[in-house]
Amino acid sequence: MNLEPIGIIHSPFKDASGTPIQPALAGGSKGRVEVFPQFEPGLKDLEGFERIWLVYWFDRASQPRLRVVPFLDSVERGVFATRAPCRPNPIGISPVRLTSVSGNVLHVSDVDVLDRTPLLDIKPYAPRFDHFEVARSGWLDRARGRGIADDRFAGDGQETDG
Amino acid sequence: MNLEPIGIIHSPFKDASGTPIQPALAGGSKGRVEVFPQFEPGLKDLEGFERIWLVYWFDRASQPRLRVVPFLDSVERGVFATRAPCRPNPIGISPVRLTSVSGNVLHVSDVDVLDRTPLLDIKPYAPRFDHFEVARSGWLDRARGRGIADDRFAGDGQETDG
Repeated sequence: MNLEPIGIIHSPFKDASGTPIQPALAGGSKGRVEVFPQFEPGLKDLEGFERIWLVYWFDRASQPRLRVVPFLDSVERGVFATRAPCRPNPIGISPVRLTSVSGNVLHVSDVDVLDRTPLLDIKPYAPRFDHFEVARSGWLDRARGRGIADDRFAGDGQETDG
Repeated sequence: MNLEPIGIIHSPFKDASGTPIQPALAGGSKGRVEVFPQFEPGLKDLEGFERIWLVYWFDRASQPRLRVVPFLDSVERGVFATRAPCRPNPIGISPVRLTSVSGNVLHVSDVDVLDRTPLLDIKPYAPRFDHFEVARSGWLDRARGRGIADDRFAGDGQETDG
């Protein structure tokens, strides 16, 4: 199971510290997704979607940990109950807003990823697939916080989310 | 960028043909997620969540295609504007319902993946992160269909979604 980047996500965030931890908490921050030209035919019809999932590689996360203290909490949680980047398979998913498409470049906002993050996939965001009413969201139901990362999950480079 | 499975998803679906294409269209189909024992510490706190994202590998999808006719449509679309499995990086995401946790086994419903699909990651589903109001969902706004796959994206084995 090998991955090949299909592009690069450009954002204003050079370091984990100070980066938004989720699109919903990103305050409209703008970014640009450069899809490598050979994949451009796969972007057809994407601009009809107001929001898209970016699937990417947390290339600057620290080594995997199975217990973490997430940004919005002060208690240690299982990593799979968080969106922290230091995961056994460091794959991130972010539902960003798609502003416009220019050839192989996507202009997006609500970006919560580090500059030059390797892009793995793009999927359409659709309420009929992605909205579910839930009564319980675990520890997140009581979590408070600014939604801005520090460097607790940063590896050699750094990385954010969750 | 190498991936290592962290578990196996068990479902009633042995073949792509007849498999639901999304959790929202899966009619409560039941499954079981076997997380390899070494990753069990990462499951702490997960049972507080009513729904979880399964991130997995479309191991039986056909070779990548950049243009596809999705299950809910009759027109060729860019693969990144669909949830079809034959993607350059064949990663699937499914927000399934978490019924219970027994040690390293998760009992889930609304399962839309093939039996014995390799699991890559688990993330909590949270409306505050994953719900966005959108006015436009592209071609999906007009799409109709049963939400059940056929074998159009099946490779040597087979695979569904999208």
